[in-house]
Amino acid sequence: MTDPLPNGATIGILGGGQLGRMLSVAAARLGFRCHIFEPGAHPPAGDVAHAVTTAAYDDAGALTAFARSVDVVTFEFENIPTTALDLIEANTPIRPNREALRISQDRLTEKQFLQGLGLAVAPFADVPDAAALDAALAQVGTPAILKTRRFGYDGKGQARLTSPNDATQALSEMNANPAVLEGFVDFTREISVIAARGADGGVACFDPGENIHRDGILHTTTVPAHISAAQRTDAVLLAAKILSALDYVGVMGVELFVTPQGLVVNEIAPRVHNSGHWTQNGCAVDQFEQHIRAVAGWPLGDGQRHADVVMENLIGDDMSRVPDLARAPDTALHLYGKAEIKPGRKMGHVNRITR
Amino acid sequence: MTDPLPNGATIGILGGGQLGRMLSVAAARLGFRCHIFEPGAHPPAGDVAHAVTTAAYDDAGALTAFARSVDVVTFEFENIPTTALDLIEANTPIRPNREALRISQDRLTEKQFLQGLGLAVAPFADVPDAAALDAALAQVGTPAILKTRRFGYDGKGQARLTSPNDATQALSEMNANPAVLEGFVDFTREISVIAARGADGGVACFDPGENIHRDGILHTTTVPAHISAAQRTDAVLLAAKILSALDYVGVMGVELFVTPQGLVVNEIAPRVHNSGHWTQNGCAVDQFEQHIRAVAGWPLGDGQRHADVVMENLIGDDMSRVPDLARAPDTALHLYGKAEIKPGRKMGHVNRITR
Repeated sequence: MTDPLPNGATIGILGGGQLGRMLSVAAARLGFRCHIFEPGAHPPAGDVAHAVTTAAYDDAGALTAFARSVDVVTFEFENIPTTALDLIEANTPIRPNREALRISQDRLTEKQFLQGLGLAVAPFADVPDAAALDAALAQVGTPAILKTRRFGYDGKGQARLTSPNDATQALSEMNANPAVLEGFVDFTREISVIAARGADGGVACFDPGENIHRDGILHTTTVPAHISAAQRTDAVLLAAKILSALDYVGVMGVELFVTPQGLVVNEIAPRVHNSGHWTQNGCAVDQFEQHIRAVAGWPLGDGQRHADVVMENLIGDDMSRVPDLARAPDTALHLYGKAEIKPGRKMGHVNRITR
Repeated sequence: MTDPLPNGATIGILGGGQLGRMLSVAAARLGFRCHIFEPGAHPPAGDVAHAVTTAAYDDAGALTAFARSVDVVTFEFENIPTTALDLIEANTPIRPNREALRISQDRLTEKQFLQGLGLAVAPFADVPDAAALDAALAQVGTPAILKTRRFGYDGKGQARLTSPNDATQALSEMNANPAVLEGFVDFTREISVIAARGADGGVACFDPGENIHRDGILHTTTVPAHISAAQRTDAVLLAAKILSALDYVGVMGVELFVTPQGLVVNEIAPRVHNSGHWTQNGCAVDQFEQHIRAVAGWPLGDGQRHADVVMENLIGDDMSRVPDLARAPDTALHLYGKAEIKPGRKMGHVNRITR
């Protein structure tokens, strides 16, 4: 590994949304500067960054100049074009590494990787084209979910099949993209582990949080999760196995189903994760700072939790609740500075300290 | 009072040091943008702000453009030239108000104001010129401290007199500026109250912190302070009296001596205060967000503390301790991104969560 980044070094972040915004603030807290690369105008992260490049991911000149102006590059989302990554990596190290991105960019590759580690995943079948769906349904059964292999998030690019009769409709929602059919897992809870691995190979995990979704979007995360000590240990060991197998450096979100037969991996995200926002008000070192520490080659925080927290996302019109939330005791608001309120758009979140 | 500032409004901050930096981050957390006005190049606050104006306080054009680009103006330090404030106030409201600045800019005026409220202050005498020092010494006695009436901070513009023989040396350190002679207070502890008053007149105080100074600069603040419940109540009521008398809107730091005869006001600072940095890791709403809430016309946080904290300043070469501090459990680093390390320069602070 290389030397730790010194005071005043610059970290490049691909993506200027709320995750980039909170990463930038965390980096500043450690004395670093951030340079945001984002195609969209007025990115939320731009309000708290040292520099912003507004350019497309196929703008080779802008990517190269960006890469040369920073000491290391990280990212807030996994669907970054490979050509852009190639241009950056020719100039500057990227953390987490390309392998973690390659695997998590593709649902099929990800499931095969996790299976290869001996971890349980939902039943699945490859659906490279429409003709393959019948065989996949025969293998996985219904109910099931058809998902595009790439570029899905927050429930987009997904279609639910309650019976084989839904096949035509589901296929149409894939827009002819390669897909994967996933069977349902009969789970009692969904939890996630926010795990971090440092440049020295050390792993630190935050306490697992328990997640509730609404309309395919995370609604709340509660810590501590209602799981046993054995399940907590299993979750942390399983996350550490994934990060170590990838020689990963940074924070990863690992979503798990709790079932009577044990833990089943739902998906992994090679970045800070919505279900880790509670750490901002529950830990001395939150997930954003933890990621920056890893990327900068610094020592990791130990993940110790000093409060119980319920995180709730503020989606779309939830913004009308902000005046009331501002009056609630033990409640920390985190708004993203997005100008336009849209249905389903993540506008902010709130962390309630419950003990 | 006016309506609360809406999502996306811009707050102007005079001064781009670490206090402006942490105010800017807190404002972003509530969905606001910050515009920093600062004469010096590369201000620490500039790394986490939406916009920065680099101009002098006598640049009328820059001040006017700045004032017109923001919805409200606040400040991180009290020694702002009156002419600059006049130019700004012609375009944009300033919070806290001018009266609080006028009083706290002048040690003599401040002491007379506090006395007028019936609060105890250290014995003092006006020293408008060199000729007045003999009479002041006869009144106050020695040991005593001669302080310039204006523009002093962190022990600068101060001279200690252990006997009247030190008069000539002490006067020379005033550079012919009007001064005030202060007697010593025989105190058992020094505490400070970080108090906030909202636009609706409501007051909220954080728990008093106990301060230790080294070389005239704050070294540590510990919460809870080692004081009785009655002293805690006295401190909070006294702070509320000061803020209400000034029709104050924002956060104020009130430094107090604890003596067997009761609380003595040392000084007030009409801004967020170094001794309130512990709130970043002890409260859902910290002093920076509390100040922004007040300035924006939002509801105040209630000041509730959910952790015990020891805040320690990192001064000059203390930066060499950062690698060790980064490894310490329950320890939150807050570095200011200052490029150059100088003796006596505040480079960052660390909050240790002790319970």
